[in-house]
Amino acid sequence: MSHTPAATPEIPASRYRDRQDRLAGLVEDRGFEAILVGVGPDLEYLTGYRALPLERLTMLVVARGADPFLVVPRLERAAAEAGTRVSLQVRTWEETEDPYTLALSGIPAARDREARFAVSDGLWALHLLAFQAHLADDDRFDAYAFGLASSLLGELRAIKDPDEIALLRLAAHAADRVVAAIAAGPLVGRTEADVAREVRERLIAEGHDEASFAIVASGSNAASPHHDATDRAIRAGEPIVLDIGGSLGGYGSDITRTLWVTGGDPANEPDERFRHLFAVLHGAHEAATAAVRPGVACEAIDAAARERIAAEGYGEQFIHRTGHGIGLEAHEDPYLVAGNREPLAVGHAFSIEPGIYLEGQYGARIEDIVVCGPDGPDVLNEAPRELYVVAG
Amino acid sequence: MSHTPAATPEIPASRYRDRQDRLAGLVEDRGFEAILVGVGPDLEYLTGYRALPLERLTMLVVARGADPFLVVPRLERAAAEAGTRVSLQVRTWEETEDPYTLALSGIPAARDREARFAVSDGLWALHLLAFQAHLADDDRFDAYAFGLASSLLGELRAIKDPDEIALLRLAAHAADRVVAAIAAGPLVGRTEADVAREVRERLIAEGHDEASFAIVASGSNAASPHHDATDRAIRAGEPIVLDIGGSLGGYGSDITRTLWVTGGDPANEPDERFRHLFAVLHGAHEAATAAVRPGVACEAIDAAARERIAAEGYGEQFIHRTGHGIGLEAHEDPYLVAGNREPLAVGHAFSIEPGIYLEGQYGARIEDIVVCGPDGPDVLNEAPRELYVVAG
Repeated sequence: MSHTPAATPEIPASRYRDRQDRLAGLVEDRGFEAILVGVGPDLEYLTGYRALPLERLTMLVVARGADPFLVVPRLERAAAEAGTRVSLQVRTWEETEDPYTLALSGIPAARDREARFAVSDGLWALHLLAFQAHLADDDRFDAYAFGLASSLLGELRAIKDPDEIALLRLAAHAADRVVAAIAAGPLVGRTEADVAREVRERLIAEGHDEASFAIVASGSNAASPHHDATDRAIRAGEPIVLDIGGSLGGYGSDITRTLWVTGGDPANEPDERFRHLFAVLHGAHEAATAAVRPGVACEAIDAAARERIAAEGYGEQFIHRTGHGIGLEAHEDPYLVAGNREPLAVGHAFSIEPGIYLEGQYGARIEDIVVCGPDGPDVLNEAPRELYVVAG
Repeated sequence: MSHTPAATPEIPASRYRDRQDRLAGLVEDRGFEAILVGVGPDLEYLTGYRALPLERLTMLVVARGADPFLVVPRLERAAAEAGTRVSLQVRTWEETEDPYTLALSGIPAARDREARFAVSDGLWALHLLAFQAHLADDDRFDAYAFGLASSLLGELRAIKDPDEIALLRLAAHAADRVVAAIAAGPLVGRTEADVAREVRERLIAEGHDEASFAIVASGSNAASPHHDATDRAIRAGEPIVLDIGGSLGGYGSDITRTLWVTGGDPANEPDERFRHLFAVLHGAHEAATAAVRPGVACEAIDAAARERIAAEGYGEQFIHRTGHGIGLEAHEDPYLVAGNREPLAVGHAFSIEPGIYLEGQYGARIEDIVVCGPDGPDVLNEAPRELYVVAG
């Protein structure tokens, strides 16, 4: 099964400098002293550097009135220099030194006012509490407050450029191929966990850097949207919700298709109720996708799916929002959820994934990754959206 | 390459109740109002539940004077109930509700004193800042302070029970097999990234739930301890530092071996300097391992390796601590680092991984996972520790 996929294209190096410059402008305009960018998608977006999220502090500091700099453990200096795709000042700390003092010392003093800092949404409490404790003792800052980096970076990261969309499309197509391979079987008699393991192997073999999740929810487990694959054996005459994804070139894939396995026996075909439920879901998915265009509120996409499902009496069984943004992170802005009045813009990338769940019985979901284009939706996934009735 | 590994054994369900009871005792004894346990290794340790770390709040709340309860998004109720291996009250929130208010409302009021809360070290800033903002407005608490969950949970999690050690051993042996397969080649002419992809596929095929990292550092890249695999092609006549791992049954593997590829040509055998460097490293690794026994300070293990390396003039080239604890997390207590006077205890599990790095030239590292037994070290990895001189 092992093969060498084509090399994954890269974001042009010049893009990182642009992003840092735009962020520095936002730090200034919105009155922050600095943004403290921890390991994770924010750091990757700004520098290209993918470090493992571990306990040692690695952090990009973009402070008002100072050049950006990267704080890294000394042992990771070479990895950081190789991993950052833009030239950047690197300040290292030894195993027995205090990295928080090092990070704060590069931020110009701000006396006689409340100093505002933004931190990555995913920064560990370990680091945030250390910064808060240090600031309480740092007489270069009289008072301080923390906000989230997403208040600055969210709007930048949410709009994907053509290179990012190309990577999202590659990831989507790789996931499409894994869906096709899994749907080709065998499935009946295997455990969900065994199929999930095959999904993960195939995602990597198809060029993913990471196989992040593999929901294989069979029979009554299909009524649980985030079901974790178990040792339950798949039986003929039941549905499987297959929701899989990971990242490729740093960008996420996330696709859901619903299968029905018959074991080759016509007596095990989907029952009428399931066919109806799936038809309703399919219509809702199409309606939500068709509603995508610039200027439409995020919540309107959610409503487009929800109205169709509610009209058929399944409103209470559609127990989650319609979608989430996707990019360097599996879930990010924009969220397609009631209450989010943000208008869609060209370059927004997100999932559209309505589902209907009948507790104790079964469920179904259809999910694509969609980009908002200038005239409407650009649907990245190409795998058929119909119910996959397979011998299994 | 796909096969079905034997089912992974599980931690007995009764263990989770014991752990929660011990934690509740620590919350009481140390004067905390509550510990707020986010998604991640703390939650898995206490409940068995492995949820994906995403933006929606999932949290175990263990408050003084109240029964523990789990806050989960409604769509994850079924997954949480299936995933928790101990019966637990579950409180759900809808997509448009506020989960922080829900979590805090289950904690008894604490007026007229500073209410102390502990949060998981890895809790996202997104959540911690939301709790801080809510508490500032919550008149059931007059003042508050936050500490780290590791101050309570670290000592519990660091001592592994026999079932945890069995899982660590299985993970180690699976990683040993991957090392053997990679060392068998082919290697020369392939890119580091391609070999890294094979490592990840093999880790999954050998039963890992996750292939977390695959350092393949060839030639001068071997001088970077946390090198990220690149498109550099491996050449005959150079070393490769192979540092790989992931998790199996939730527990981590982490092994490093150093290879030297000759391409089958005796002229490409390791040079004298490298052989000497490796011999020094091997001796240091053995000395550190031999020093493991209950009561010995963590920093003494670090010193045992460092003294050997420094005595041969490589002290400045050993640029990281000697090891880290391992369990549900890739890095956790105890850390084998200068300044850590904590004594080793029976059941501590950690890496021993000295390395020597000659910048611009090459480097080497040897790493095993070791458990502190009653009479000395229990070394989990069984792959040979010698320099692997292979045709490649």
